[in-house]
Amino acid sequence: MTAAPAPFTAADHRARMERAARSAAEAGLAGLLVAPGPDLVWLTGYAPPADTERLTLLVLTPGQDPVLVVPALEAPDAARAVGAPALTLRDWTDGRDPYAVTAPLLDPDGRYGVSDNTWAMHLLGLQRTLPGTAYASLTDALPMLRAVKDPAELERLAAAGAAADAAYEEILRVPFAGRRETDVARDLADLLRAHGHSRVDFTVVGSGPNGADPHHEAGDRVIEDGDTVVLDFGGLKHGYGSDTSRTVHVGEPDAEERKVHDVVREAQEAAFRAVRPGIACQEVDRAARAVITEAGYGEHFIHRTGHGIGVTTHEPPYMVEGEELPLVPGMCFSVEPGIYLPGRFGVRIEDIVTVTGDGGRRLNDTPRDLAVVH
Amino acid sequence: MTAAPAPFTAADHRARMERAARSAAEAGLAGLLVAPGPDLVWLTGYAPPADTERLTLLVLTPGQDPVLVVPALEAPDAARAVGAPALTLRDWTDGRDPYAVTAPLLDPDGRYGVSDNTWAMHLLGLQRTLPGTAYASLTDALPMLRAVKDPAELERLAAAGAAADAAYEEILRVPFAGRRETDVARDLADLLRAHGHSRVDFTVVGSGPNGADPHHEAGDRVIEDGDTVVLDFGGLKHGYGSDTSRTVHVGEPDAEERKVHDVVREAQEAAFRAVRPGIACQEVDRAARAVITEAGYGEHFIHRTGHGIGVTTHEPPYMVEGEELPLVPGMCFSVEPGIYLPGRFGVRIEDIVTVTGDGGRRLNDTPRDLAVVH
Repeated sequence: MTAAPAPFTAADHRARMERAARSAAEAGLAGLLVAPGPDLVWLTGYAPPADTERLTLLVLTPGQDPVLVVPALEAPDAARAVGAPALTLRDWTDGRDPYAVTAPLLDPDGRYGVSDNTWAMHLLGLQRTLPGTAYASLTDALPMLRAVKDPAELERLAAAGAAADAAYEEILRVPFAGRRETDVARDLADLLRAHGHSRVDFTVVGSGPNGADPHHEAGDRVIEDGDTVVLDFGGLKHGYGSDTSRTVHVGEPDAEERKVHDVVREAQEAAFRAVRPGIACQEVDRAARAVITEAGYGEHFIHRTGHGIGVTTHEPPYMVEGEELPLVPGMCFSVEPGIYLPGRFGVRIEDIVTVTGDGGRRLNDTPRDLAVVH
Repeated sequence: MTAAPAPFTAADHRARMERAARSAAEAGLAGLLVAPGPDLVWLTGYAPPADTERLTLLVLTPGQDPVLVVPALEAPDAARAVGAPALTLRDWTDGRDPYAVTAPLLDPDGRYGVSDNTWAMHLLGLQRTLPGTAYASLTDALPMLRAVKDPAELERLAAAGAAADAAYEEILRVPFAGRRETDVARDLADLLRAHGHSRVDFTVVGSGPNGADPHHEAGDRVIEDGDTVVLDFGGLKHGYGSDTSRTVHVGEPDAEERKVHDVVREAQEAAFRAVRPGIACQEVDRAARAVITEAGYGEHFIHRTGHGIGVTTHEPPYMVEGEELPLVPGMCFSVEPGIYLPGRFGVRIEDIVTVTGDGGRRLNDTPRDLAVVH
């Protein structure tokens, strides 16, 4: 494993907050409101001890210093966050109305971007307290906020991808036949941690018919000789995400299994080759879908082709029909077409891809053939 | 450990959904909208593989069958939920507008209760699609929805409390002095799991000055002889929460440490004795606060006295000034006053208490004296 990257500093977080506030102004917003979650971590380095009903809210107003509204009993935690030197803390005590504490920080007639995962309870509290305000989710109002990664972020995403690739190479050597999906899933989680992941977010092991359910995690099913097995796993390393899928076969695959796998592989390659600055996100989806549809499996490709990745494993940009956002160098997202044959098996192949000056570069690069396991 | 309780059935979930829909009607609501989280688990038994930007939403309309809006690729998971037989699934595919799929299920002029932790992005999507609708959080609109526990739930909460108590008895025998807070925290987590917890939510070990930060979890500080140490830990056992705090001392406490501990213990006892049907939640807070204020430490009791507990470890009812909701038999909540002396030490004592026909009953019952550890 390579050395850990230098941690982000208060200056890094200050620069991100200033840039976010400028972007808000350019988008015609009065500011941004950011609740605990990936946006808050990215902007301030702060994650509260738990995400609860007590309001924690970053208020970013163009031209003003950032303010973090925080429960009084969590103020000491917030004060220790990496980005805290760039923040003014405004604490509130149990029994007070946290929205009344927040209101003087807002323009009563302003339109604000609000982090996607802010609790509805808090949004309703603000709407009630300041009926003249309006809101749009960050994904709708400012999808580019975290979409373009800087070199330090790309380095982390590449390291997370390399760690996931190492886990994949090693999982091919564990026994599959006769063990439960959950056993292989545990091996995958152990391998991700062994390769430096601090958090494992998902370890899909979809064997046989379970592979036809794209979001099946891992269950009690005992893997058998002859099974196709979808593996899809990832988590966070140094605060940035990994997410890769490969499909393996226990023993020799039959002709149809090979064919379906070839189609998915060709679709994934086509989508990867479509990646270049300026094209709309939906073009990446269309490139994969065209291959699968042409091969007669269109109705069995039941999800979008990809999602952005950064401090979280699902974020803008989304590679989906209808998404016209143009690709920009530095964006990072999954390219993961699949075919799912109900009651039989599934195939998915997924890499994280980053947009370069003239195309795309994969951050996962293990073989994409149908590996045989035992 | 006693045998696991009988699992909740589809009929149990159906009954909860019917009751919730009736309560909604009585509260003048057109229905309830419930996103993934504790409310959805309680109503349907369903938790999606991950809580993401894809809309999953239970629509409960009085007099109509419940409908679960679910991403197509997660429909197979939803169909396996315990409560699924009582649900109609309405799936939507990536690239479609999930709010447009939900809209026909709603009264375009209706007022809905929405689960507290629903993503703001989803609430904004509904507000945009159906501008005539209005919303209130479940905590505001229907605080009683899950507040009164039935006998099967009480049994689980009592078992979780007993498990946490067993963990506390055993943690008194581990070494404290010379070990890091995180080491003791890991011991606590292991003990909770050994006593049947499926999930550990928090293991606060606040030694010396760290104890003065109520939400400090556990850090690298090495515990020393002479430290006061706040322990606050809990999680889920059989789907229901535990949450208890005791304060211990490494070696013999001095006179002030004893005095502060005595005040908190007296405050906790006073709050517990205040519990009876019909009094307002805030009276429980006032009972604890009066003791601490009288002793001259009022400014150092910087949080509310308690919060409800059930399928999550923070939920209504809240024991806080301003909360006029009356106590009802079957409610379960924490009673956890504390005193926090910045830079020096903290003390907190916490039990889960359930309201009985004529008072309260503790679900934690380890000794509340200042235990000496080594």
